[in-house]
Amino acid sequence: MSKHNAWKGTVAVLAATAAMFGVTGTANAADGKSVDQLAAHGGAQRIAAIGSERAKNVILFIGDGMGDSEITVARDYLHGFDGSFDGLDRIGQPGKLGDAAAGTGQYTTYSLGGSSDDSAMAKGRDGKLTGSTKAGVMTPVTDSSASGSGWATGTKTYNNAVDVDVHGNPQLNLIELAKAKGLATGNVTTAEIQDATPAVLESHSTERACYGPQGKWDGATDTNGDGKVDASDGDAAKNCLASQLKVNGGIGSISEQLLDTRADVTIGGGAKYFNQIDPTYGDGTKTLWQQAADRGFQTVDKDVDQFAGLAYQQDKPVLALMADGNMPTQFNPTPALTQEATEQRGPVSCTTNDKWLGTKNANGNSASLADMTDKAIDLLQANPKSRNGFFLQVEGASIDKQDHAANACGQIGETDDLDKAISAALKKVDLKDTLIIVTADHAHTSQIVNEPPAYALSTILVNKLGERMVVSYGTAPSADPDAADPTKGYGQGGMEHTGTQLRIAASGPGAQRVNGLTDQTDNFYTIAYALGLAADTDSQQRLSDGAKVEVAGKDGATVANATGFDGDAVLSYELKDDADGTVVASSDTSTPVSGVRVATAATTAIPLQQLTPGANYTLTVTGRQSGKQVTVPFTAAAQTSAGQSGQGDGVIASGTVNKPAAPGALGKTGATVALVVLAAAALAAAGIALRRQLAARR
Amino acid sequence: MSKHNAWKGTVAVLAATAAMFGVTGTANAADGKSVDQLAAHGGAQRIAAIGSERAKNVILFIGDGMGDSEITVARDYLHGFDGSFDGLDRIGQPGKLGDAAAGTGQYTTYSLGGSSDDSAMAKGRDGKLTGSTKAGVMTPVTDSSASGSGWATGTKTYNNAVDVDVHGNPQLNLIELAKAKGLATGNVTTAEIQDATPAVLESHSTERACYGPQGKWDGATDTNGDGKVDASDGDAAKNCLASQLKVNGGIGSISEQLLDTRADVTIGGGAKYFNQIDPTYGDGTKTLWQQAADRGFQTVDKDVDQFAGLAYQQDKPVLALMADGNMPTQFNPTPALTQEATEQRGPVSCTTNDKWLGTKNANGNSASLADMTDKAIDLLQANPKSRNGFFLQVEGASIDKQDHAANACGQIGETDDLDKAISAALKKVDLKDTLIIVTADHAHTSQIVNEPPAYALSTILVNKLGERMVVSYGTAPSADPDAADPTKGYGQGGMEHTGTQLRIAASGPGAQRVNGLTDQTDNFYTIAYALGLAADTDSQQRLSDGAKVEVAGKDGATVANATGFDGDAVLSYELKDDADGTVVASSDTSTPVSGVRVATAATTAIPLQQLTPGANYTLTVTGRQSGKQVTVPFTAAAQTSAGQSGQGDGVIASGTVNKPAAPGALGKTGATVALVVLAAAALAAAGIALRRQLAARR
Repeated sequence: MSKHNAWKGTVAVLAATAAMFGVTGTANAADGKSVDQLAAHGGAQRIAAIGSERAKNVILFIGDGMGDSEITVARDYLHGFDGSFDGLDRIGQPGKLGDAAAGTGQYTTYSLGGSSDDSAMAKGRDGKLTGSTKAGVMTPVTDSSASGSGWATGTKTYNNAVDVDVHGNPQLNLIELAKAKGLATGNVTTAEIQDATPAVLESHSTERACYGPQGKWDGATDTNGDGKVDASDGDAAKNCLASQLKVNGGIGSISEQLLDTRADVTIGGGAKYFNQIDPTYGDGTKTLWQQAADRGFQTVDKDVDQFAGLAYQQDKPVLALMADGNMPTQFNPTPALTQEATEQRGPVSCTTNDKWLGTKNANGNSASLADMTDKAIDLLQANPKSRNGFFLQVEGASIDKQDHAANACGQIGETDDLDKAISAALKKVDLKDTLIIVTADHAHTSQIVNEPPAYALSTILVNKLGERMVVSYGTAPSADPDAADPTKGYGQGGMEHTGTQLRIAASGPGAQRVNGLTDQTDNFYTIAYALGLAADTDSQQRLSDGAKVEVAGKDGATVANATGFDGDAVLSYELKDDADGTVVASSDTSTPVSGVRVATAATTAIPLQQLTPGANYTLTVTGRQSGKQVTVPFTAAAQTSAGQSGQGDGVIASGTVNKPAAPGALGKTGATVALVVLAAAALAAAGIALRRQLAARR
Repeated sequence: MSKHNAWKGTVAVLAATAAMFGVTGTANAADGKSVDQLAAHGGAQRIAAIGSERAKNVILFIGDGMGDSEITVARDYLHGFDGSFDGLDRIGQPGKLGDAAAGTGQYTTYSLGGSSDDSAMAKGRDGKLTGSTKAGVMTPVTDSSASGSGWATGTKTYNNAVDVDVHGNPQLNLIELAKAKGLATGNVTTAEIQDATPAVLESHSTERACYGPQGKWDGATDTNGDGKVDASDGDAAKNCLASQLKVNGGIGSISEQLLDTRADVTIGGGAKYFNQIDPTYGDGTKTLWQQAADRGFQTVDKDVDQFAGLAYQQDKPVLALMADGNMPTQFNPTPALTQEATEQRGPVSCTTNDKWLGTKNANGNSASLADMTDKAIDLLQANPKSRNGFFLQVEGASIDKQDHAANACGQIGETDDLDKAISAALKKVDLKDTLIIVTADHAHTSQIVNEPPAYALSTILVNKLGERMVVSYGTAPSADPDAADPTKGYGQGGMEHTGTQLRIAASGPGAQRVNGLTDQTDNFYTIAYALGLAADTDSQQRLSDGAKVEVAGKDGATVANATGFDGDAVLSYELKDDADGTVVASSDTSTPVSGVRVATAATTAIPLQQLTPGANYTLTVTGRQSGKQVTVPFTAAAQTSAGQSGQGDGVIASGTVNKPAAPGALGKTGATVALVVLAAAALAAAGIALRRQLAARR
């Protein structure tokens, strides 16, 4: 997909969005807000702040696709119809966890476009969806990326968006904000770590399938059959907005940004995507695994014993990816069948999957979600930053994935894993200072009925208590052509999310904030307020008030390092030659995901070209979210041989924020400003090319 | 159906239940309780009492079939995806109703048999199900009668049961207990007043379809074509356990018991069933309407102006039935179609039904659910008993019924009606002394998706805001044979309930008791504790401690009147001739619904035979729930001409409870005792016939 074509979509969105404002601005007045208002940061909140309780730590458990129906399916099967989950049902239950505050409520999950008249979610999972042609349309059913973006950033957005608003503007997420406040941070999932729910804590991407610099390529297959394995093998899998790729001057894929965000603990699947090559890094041949090691990560590639041996090391964040793709589920599949076929098959029970990582290996080690949660908490608690507190997200991802596949036992086992992860957490933390929230990102298909329906596919289950139940699946947009074969499971991969409101439960300080009816975006505020993070746009922009840029000589070259842009995810820069005023280098600003990705709460390298030693330049660095700008006039360092310390080494010049706190054009989420900017950006993308290869790294 | 055959089922249940105890008694130990334990009064509770807040009044709003999905469908359509209900969403919402306590949570709704391997619920609605062949089987999906019995009595029971446990034993309900405490009571619904949800506040019935003495006959049609309209026309519609019918010595149908329960306000549909004849009342030709009038009810038969004019009159409870069947819905139907047909039809919007009672008539009167709620509260507040408080249930019934019919606009309009009824209530009560609870009885089929699914039927809706959504229905056990016709709606009437946990929300004193995960039966305790009613079995049995029986001469005959059996729903009696010890009269005790229905918190007439004047007798009256017994030795009154006051008029003798508070055999819900008694009862039913026609009336 060319960059030009990608932004055709955006231009269409501009028109559609503008037209929509005309309609909904009036019509919605009686009942709510316009799409424009809803799309703003915090615009979809249902509640004002309730209470002022602070928590030192927050753990957010997400059951992906875990609607009330999925909770009940799993509880009924695992614990009997009158049973209870040990973890999941204790959170939010008054009196079940000492005198900890407890709250339960519901929240709404609608999104703002992306799959309103085609099956974009399913296509997105298949890696075929590129771009969001429907951003800005009220959509009753969210995908995992819009929903995750909601609680991670507080901004309601379109299906397929990862922490960008409907205009493509990056929105700061909880891990970025927690790092800005000096907290330890963690991100655990049973999915590929690049999947939407973990991705919303790592990255800003206009497309959820932009897994790596080569999209969803496995990093090892000679896809194009040219006899070698290199970046070109990923061309067909490149589900990224072109301008977001680093080779085009963008902030990079989800995997690359994960390394920039640099959570203290990252555990999940998706190992194979780290075999991809970032052509802009080093000599252009290194895999993301190598880059991670270079940049100081403790890495684990699918080794359960190495995982079990992980311990906190200073400045060595953990990146443990325990499966090439999503992690194997606890139970073997029980594909749903037609009424006749399921009755012919009769009741089935769930059996343990040999590949499940929760089974102990010969060394007594395992890597269930509970193990991973346990490990993550250990690592965070051993981290000195946890004196300030920590934020950890734990996702049970395959409740959703197996619900899509109409696989009752698959989703049940994954819910069991999540429940046990919650129990594991409860053993490690004190609810006097830790808020635990359990919720989901969207509801899903599975329904409990007494008998197999005629329309939908279903599975008859009988549990260890002898209790019989039928789990039904009927939302797939197309039926499998082999439907007539009663021995075969079908509708696999095709069942859809549903739009019903979800359960949210919490225990610990501030838990009462989840009571009543809230919106998914309220969850951002619940967590941000509890941890004292910068929640509103103004506070977030002020995080860049202390931004500083230092220009230094290093090995004879001139380098620039930006720090303190904590209110930003993306920086732009411009380097002028003072002699004639010409721009000798600048970042791409053609789209909101063009520019330099901020290394969160760390040092971001600004790539300067080879400069004329002794000549005078002016470097201007702008936070694209905060609008804060640092201008540094300097004289270029004298040239020396590579690898040798030269006379110009050391700080040459530095600057701090030189503009008052005027909101930056792209940092402001109000639509009028953003629309103008985006229109300009679209034109720019079509005609202007000031892109340069960047080597932004930590 | 003969009585003999009816109890064959029960004997089978005994065996099945006993077998089951063997299995589940062990297997359930890890996760919960045995079926036996669950079936006991209060056995399925999840929470202990939380807090001690008392409310003077409680209003319970039930959206029948209003799962979270149905709530979201209606909110999305009526108020936009980001909108809120004015009533429904304010209940339980912190800060939205001043400083009233607020709570929201989820509750489980499983039941104990009745439809586990056949489609008993659907059959039940069609009036074809007679008896419960599956009582005592763990069932993941409840019907409205088991669920209603759960919150009305605190006892988990089988689908099809109305306030009887799995052994058929009547369980006291909230209106009976509220009346025992001197509270005013009300019962409002858009369904037939005999339908399960209102019925659980009126009656005890082993079968929910036992609407009247002639079952579900309309009371006006010459069904058997014999040229006259009489009781025999109802023979084919008699969905009652034979022994429950008054002609067979039973406590009577739901409609008849409604008159015995005598709530202060009863408003609903089902008027035509009151055209039935109670052959045991008066001269055996009077309709239930006539009986209601005789017994002092203010009756309204479908007249909106009469309804609007209703006002409190002392000792004149209101019985207003505003439709022959269920009330017309607010919106016209939008039948769900196959994927191809619904796409061909395109988006539809909801239009108002001409027959909806919420539209004002020429006199400016209407009878929406909000109007009925408003009227009910006015009547209750004007009632001097409301100084002690009141209990009112309001049901929006056709959310369920239209969900069964795969009719999106139908269910949406009914949810709107319920929401507006809540808003109407909020204008009339003070949440300082009134607890309002909003919940449902079971979840249902409808799901919100972005596109029409291939498997299920669906309707594409577009609301006044231009927002598009698809509502999908896929749980029907059989597809309509006309499925190939895309112009026709089908699957009507066939969609099934689902087993997912439900939302419960509350505002007012004690609202926090609904937080967390509770069971449907906990709702009984929430309400009973708030109102200070007798909640546990022992307290309920003690309500009959003051029971008294007076034998009097009246018009030359000897009559007996029982009062103070407030802990009982059914009385048995035995009349012995002291001369030779022979039993000259006795109530039937062959089943738990045999005997004399207690006129709740009023005087219950015990039918004595024509006695020998001057002879000595002993009358023993036993509360079948409490086990409390009153024995009255007396001398029969001298005979006089009818209608003339004779020498024996006035009280001849009286007695009070002469047994200590030993639990009565049938009042004790423990299974061991009940099993023995039931086994004996089954034998009795098969062989012994001591039945006499009763004329128990107020």
